[in-house]
Amino acid sequence: MPDIPGVRLAVARAGYKAWERADLTLAEFAQGTTVVGLTTRSRCPSPEVELCRAHLAQGHARALVVNAGNSNAFTGARGAEATRLVTATTAAALACPEAEVFVASTGVIGVPLPQDKARAGLDAAFAKLRVGSTASWEHAATAIGTTDTFPKGAPATCIVDGRTVNIAGIAKGSGMIAPDLATMLAFVFTDAAVSPPALQAMLHAAADASFHRITVDGDTSTSDTLLAFATGAAGNAPLAAPHPAFQQALTQVCADLARQIVRDGEGAAKFITITVEGAESDRAAHRIALSIANSPLVKTAIAGGDANWGRVVMAVGKAGEAADRDRLSIRFGDTVVAREGAVVPDYDEAPVAAHLAGQQVAIGVDLGLGTGRAEVWTCDLTHGYIAINADYRT
Amino acid sequence: MPDIPGVRLAVARAGYKAWERADLTLAEFAQGTTVVGLTTRSRCPSPEVELCRAHLAQGHARALVVNAGNSNAFTGARGAEATRLVTATTAAALACPEAEVFVASTGVIGVPLPQDKARAGLDAAFAKLRVGSTASWEHAATAIGTTDTFPKGAPATCIVDGRTVNIAGIAKGSGMIAPDLATMLAFVFTDAAVSPPALQAMLHAAADASFHRITVDGDTSTSDTLLAFATGAAGNAPLAAPHPAFQQALTQVCADLARQIVRDGEGAAKFITITVEGAESDRAAHRIALSIANSPLVKTAIAGGDANWGRVVMAVGKAGEAADRDRLSIRFGDTVVAREGAVVPDYDEAPVAAHLAGQQVAIGVDLGLGTGRAEVWTCDLTHGYIAINADYRT
Repeated sequence: MPDIPGVRLAVARAGYKAWERADLTLAEFAQGTTVVGLTTRSRCPSPEVELCRAHLAQGHARALVVNAGNSNAFTGARGAEATRLVTATTAAALACPEAEVFVASTGVIGVPLPQDKARAGLDAAFAKLRVGSTASWEHAATAIGTTDTFPKGAPATCIVDGRTVNIAGIAKGSGMIAPDLATMLAFVFTDAAVSPPALQAMLHAAADASFHRITVDGDTSTSDTLLAFATGAAGNAPLAAPHPAFQQALTQVCADLARQIVRDGEGAAKFITITVEGAESDRAAHRIALSIANSPLVKTAIAGGDANWGRVVMAVGKAGEAADRDRLSIRFGDTVVAREGAVVPDYDEAPVAAHLAGQQVAIGVDLGLGTGRAEVWTCDLTHGYIAINADYRT
Repeated sequence: MPDIPGVRLAVARAGYKAWERADLTLAEFAQGTTVVGLTTRSRCPSPEVELCRAHLAQGHARALVVNAGNSNAFTGARGAEATRLVTATTAAALACPEAEVFVASTGVIGVPLPQDKARAGLDAAFAKLRVGSTASWEHAATAIGTTDTFPKGAPATCIVDGRTVNIAGIAKGSGMIAPDLATMLAFVFTDAAVSPPALQAMLHAAADASFHRITVDGDTSTSDTLLAFATGAAGNAPLAAPHPAFQQALTQVCADLARQIVRDGEGAAKFITITVEGAESDRAAHRIALSIANSPLVKTAIAGGDANWGRVVMAVGKAGEAADRDRLSIRFGDTVVAREGAVVPDYDEAPVAAHLAGQQVAIGVDLGLGTGRAEVWTCDLTHGYIAINADYRT
């Protein structure tokens, strides 16, 4: 992971949960850093999400604070007060406008973020920055995690205006993962100089090709936040419009992070790529792919290594999009299992069983109706998911 | 369960799976029996569903054949051929038009129903009817089941036109249960005389209050079929329009069967009633209730006896219907947990934990926006569901 000039990181123990680890992450940005972002479509967002939305309007950032272990969502006035305290404390320490401070919190819903812990954590993080005791990307990626089993980071470089430009992204997310926006939390940092509108357009395109095509359990967080910060330290002439090489690098970082989130899906043992082709439209293909990806019966069959392609038919049928049973083809890996509405003649399950025994599973569906296409990434549904989630708070 | 004059039942072993039990059920109806029904909204229905739809158009029935262990869905021309064989064999035995024969099959998808087994099973069933060796409701309810752990039946009586009228219903269903239509298979029999349009209207109303409000896993079968048969043997003047007492009795039977299906949800340990009030419309309330009922995170929390009401907030937020976080109230059992967007002051989790330790769990949501209301029934998501479904075919 490359250093991003203009970004300094620190982590601290706020102690939001009874754990022995850093759970507050502070990123300090150089003057003139631009910021854009996307937030959850949940109708019940956290006060942090509301704060980010308000502050995104002016497009500049001096700091990002991430709290792990407590999402502060659905906490009424006390939660909003805690968010304001974090903002005010950070703005005072940096002598910057409050609107240039961004906050994200992740963890249990319904418990107000404890203000004393947040303040102590922030003080400790700023003290570290003052003495130059900065944190690595790995430290930060670890500190923003909750049920994650590994830290998630992704780098990329590209050439813009003759300068080498770096991008580094970190993310957390494992359960409560579904598109719009599926990331739980993801932050991308670059030293490129990019105008907010250009960066926003490129971030949208990158999210469509990454975070918007993953699902673990179909559940959408109240706190999902994707922010991109551009310090401009690379010295390129500021990008005023989307730039192909930068877009490609940004999409690569987001797709890498999105795949890592699915790979770390709660209890997941297998990474499943679902490709739907021949639908009436790309949108229809996306809905059908999500119907397959979110089907508990498909996900448990894959967990069991069972080539139960009938459940794929079921999930196509319930998606609510046009489908013609007698034109439908289904494949697992490279093996076509069913074609034109029935199992293929002399179907041999052996290569399919071998494919399903691996950790990378591919399900392909061709509807035979049009040119609509979509790809979605998900994971299997195992005893591990039940064990993690039946007893999450205790 | 009452006898229904005009209905004779027989069960036989067709041997669709390697099990030692009856798996073919035959119901023979008296001349003049009317029939109405609802079928799955899946875009990939089985040939049985297509046959039922075609035969429902003429409104009379002499026989119902139910095959368990093989759904015959997604089997192309060979599956349709098997359905035709069952129809033709039955029509020949009863010397009736093929259009008066109804067929339903349930079980694994993608394997054509074996014609030799179907024919042998039918022959055995007709042989039993000829010698008066009829089956009980319990025998029939057992024979139509697959992963069901108990037979599902429900009776009701009412007075129509001064006559006592009987209703008996049987159903099977345990997984792949979601509305539109959620029953997998359900059959209702009555000796009332009812015109097809009146019976269809009353069956729709009964399904809206029963099968359309249950979900186990959000997965919709390719074979869901609900049929109602009326023999007219009670001798009442035929009902030409919906009749309040009969409607009430019919709804009672369907609701009883629907609750039994949820209680027998694959791996289910708890029955969950979700009530949503204060929504913008009944339709919005229904969508929000289903979003809660189908959330894996809510269902696993209930499995663990965890009062994680934040996940209910999450599920309300993702439903796509109007919600105002700061007006939202949530209760478990009789205990209000959160009100106006935050946990209640002095929240005591003890009564909630006690409620969640039971087998009957009630979740209430008040959106505080309007008068829309809905109730949905579901079950928890446990290790049992994974164990049953990760290894279903093997």
